Amino acid sequence: MTRDEARARDAADPLRGLRDRFALPEGTIYLDGNSLGALPKTTPARLTQVIEEQWGRDLIAGWNAHGWIDAAARVGARIAPLVGARPREVLVADSTSVNLFKLLAAACTARPDRATILSEPGNFPTDLYMAQGVAGMMVGRRVKTVAFDSLVQAIDDDVAVVLLTHVHYKSGAKRDMAAITAAAHAEGALMLWDLSHSAGAVAVDLNRCGVDLAVGCGYKYLNGGPGAPAFLYVAQALQEVLHSPLSGWMGHAAPFDFGDDYAPAPGIARFQCGTPPILGIAALEEGVAQMEGVDMPALFAKGQALCDLYIALVEERCDGFALASPRDAAWRGSHVSFAHPHAYAICQALIARRVIGDFRAPDVLRMGFAPLYTGFEDVWCAVDMLAAVMEARAWDDPAYRVRAAVT
Amino acid sequence: MTRDEARARDAADPLRGLRDRFALPEGTIYLDGNSLGALPKTTPARLTQVIEEQWGRDLIAGWNAHGWIDAAARVGARIAPLVGARPREVLVADSTSVNLFKLLAAACTARPDRATILSEPGNFPTDLYMAQGVAGMMVGRRVKTVAFDSLVQAIDDDVAVVLLTHVHYKSGAKRDMAAITAAAHAEGALMLWDLSHSAGAVAVDLNRCGVDLAVGCGYKYLNGGPGAPAFLYVAQALQEVLHSPLSGWMGHAAPFDFGDDYAPAPGIARFQCGTPPILGIAALEEGVAQMEGVDMPALFAKGQALCDLYIALVEERCDGFALASPRDAAWRGSHVSFAHPHAYAICQALIARRVIGDFRAPDVLRMGFAPLYTGFEDVWCAVDMLAAVMEARAWDDPAYRVRAAVT
Repeated sequence: MTRDEARARDAADPLRGLRDRFALPEGTIYLDGNSLGALPKTTPARLTQVIEEQWGRDLIAGWNAHGWIDAAARVGARIAPLVGARPREVLVADSTSVNLFKLLAAACTARPDRATILSEPGNFPTDLYMAQGVAGMMVGRRVKTVAFDSLVQAIDDDVAVVLLTHVHYKSGAKRDMAAITAAAHAEGALMLWDLSHSAGAVAVDLNRCGVDLAVGCGYKYLNGGPGAPAFLYVAQALQEVLHSPLSGWMGHAAPFDFGDDYAPAPGIARFQCGTPPILGIAALEEGVAQMEGVDMPALFAKGQALCDLYIALVEERCDGFALASPRDAAWRGSHVSFAHPHAYAICQALIARRVIGDFRAPDVLRMGFAPLYTGFEDVWCAVDMLAAVMEARAWDDPAYRVRAAVT
Repeated sequence: MTRDEARARDAADPLRGLRDRFALPEGTIYLDGNSLGALPKTTPARLTQVIEEQWGRDLIAGWNAHGWIDAAARVGARIAPLVGARPREVLVADSTSVNLFKLLAAACTARPDRATILSEPGNFPTDLYMAQGVAGMMVGRRVKTVAFDSLVQAIDDDVAVVLLTHVHYKSGAKRDMAAITAAAHAEGALMLWDLSHSAGAVAVDLNRCGVDLAVGCGYKYLNGGPGAPAFLYVAQALQEVLHSPLSGWMGHAAPFDFGDDYAPAPGIARFQCGTPPILGIAALEEGVAQMEGVDMPALFAKGQALCDLYIALVEERCDGFALASPRDAAWRGSHVSFAHPHAYAICQALIARRVIGDFRAPDVLRMGFAPLYTGFEDVWCAVDMLAAVMEARAWDDPAYRVRAAVT
């Protein structure tokens, strides 16, 4: 594909107009929306409204007058269709990490005779770390990791909960949600999916797959801004059975009775803990709103096509890169990783040239293709720059080897 | 005191100019800064900058370029002098509830042979609820509540940690931090103070009192906005000894190595869990900044004087109210509660007349006097309105009896 062909494909793309909803910096090709989504153009005005008109003018009355008290449930309900859930099965709350703790602990408590939280090595670190935190607090529990290829066979009657990330943060591999969930259920285990790299990027159908529990991230494909609140999902049938150990007052059945004893709220509300972060939720709501009314199957297909084009062009134009993601789009998320011994410096050289991807240790150059605002010409230009960097050995500059705090 | 005298006192107040730093609504007397602090005038522009210039323009690079990665520690260090702590002893993180869980669980783990989390009945609900959550997850642990008057005597060698709120949310009673902390230590227990109604309102000296652990709220006297991130304090000597069970990737020693095993970061950073909420932290930073350079002892003395005036005027002009707060300012926070059988409807009648206080079940009318932006004339006018409401029985309107979601 030539640059002109890529440009023509953008011109013919019925979803191309969605890009105009985002404030993308001029001259930058941004392929890191899987780490931090772009800014919706409506977000600044929304935050100004919440801050100046709601907080500034109505102060404490804002909790009722402006729906702050319901915001976590309301935005959860708007996320629900993106993940195949019913509106009251999703709640915006805390961070992905904190939500993992709530749901893993609740799952372990619901399976008192089973010792094991089962996951895979190389899962996103915070998933494993939070599981270790849960196991450390609960006597007789442990975290067991089994390589993905053997994981399903390792589910036995000692497994309380299986914890996997639907789309792997590094490889982009998409797991078979329906089959693995069924395998967990066949052994009596609960299934918890981390949707951080899925929600808004690929089709997710929690209800159809019979999923028990899920968590997800607000600042990646949902475009909620840096450190946006996360979300959690609890299947309706389990909501009255499970108990969050983070039994904060906002998850209480009657928080404003100020009683001494915790009594969980009915439904998903019991998984709320402290006072919800209103500024963050407002920004997340604007992010989620960008996908409403969008033809989501077409959007997901576009993400796959962008990834396919990137793989094809890198393999055509750049030597020394080994594809570290599934080649089959059906088993991939919306980001693509290539391994290269100099991946870190190459990534830095690209960033210096305003092609923004990221590096994942030890040797992966990862590019994300958020289909809401990424075009085919972006992909072409990114690979053109990569080819130029490789051709000129531009990466071979000591300045590109110094690691920053966040890479 | 007459209204003219109150006005004259404002005119003579060297701290009066601080009020101009806040965007207070015209015609409202706001006496609920202890529930939700007012909007600093600099906050809207700061958020616009973070959203449009930092997130919008620099996207993922914002983590390094704009100090997002250090924001939780940086703002914690700015809160530290308000609570008598060293800069690296305070961290902004999560909600007050989640921080309570981290520190209570860490304390219990550090005292493995002691079963009890000791608190008082009627402590702020989320403190008790989170303690119950911790006890529910850890075999053999329990929450014991003992009436405050007998609490010190109840500290024995089975107490792992004593949990109290420094200024009681309802009564405004200020506890003797030094004495109670010493009593806990004498029995080998750790001491955790909730500073939600203290920080920014009264003098707090965690280091001088030898306090082990503390948490506090960002949206009350710190003026961080609705649902602002909270803060936590861990005494330096304990930081390497204690372990948060919420062992998220942002508390890891090397989060970007993406290893499978959790290893806590050195120092206070280990008490961070997920990705920090950048919009919320930025708003909190603006709130905290309003107190920098302010003569804090004078500010706290003003808060006491405002409360004293309110008590004197209510008792002079309104019948049927029983003071439910300490009369001695030395043992009070910056809010005052009066009990009255019709407190709920009276509160609603006042709100309808734009005097904003709040109600706490079952019968308390609570007024907060945030000394940064509350004046003596405000107090006079609030009591004048209260007297008018009582005189006209204006509260005796069915409309004022309907409880809203947040009261």
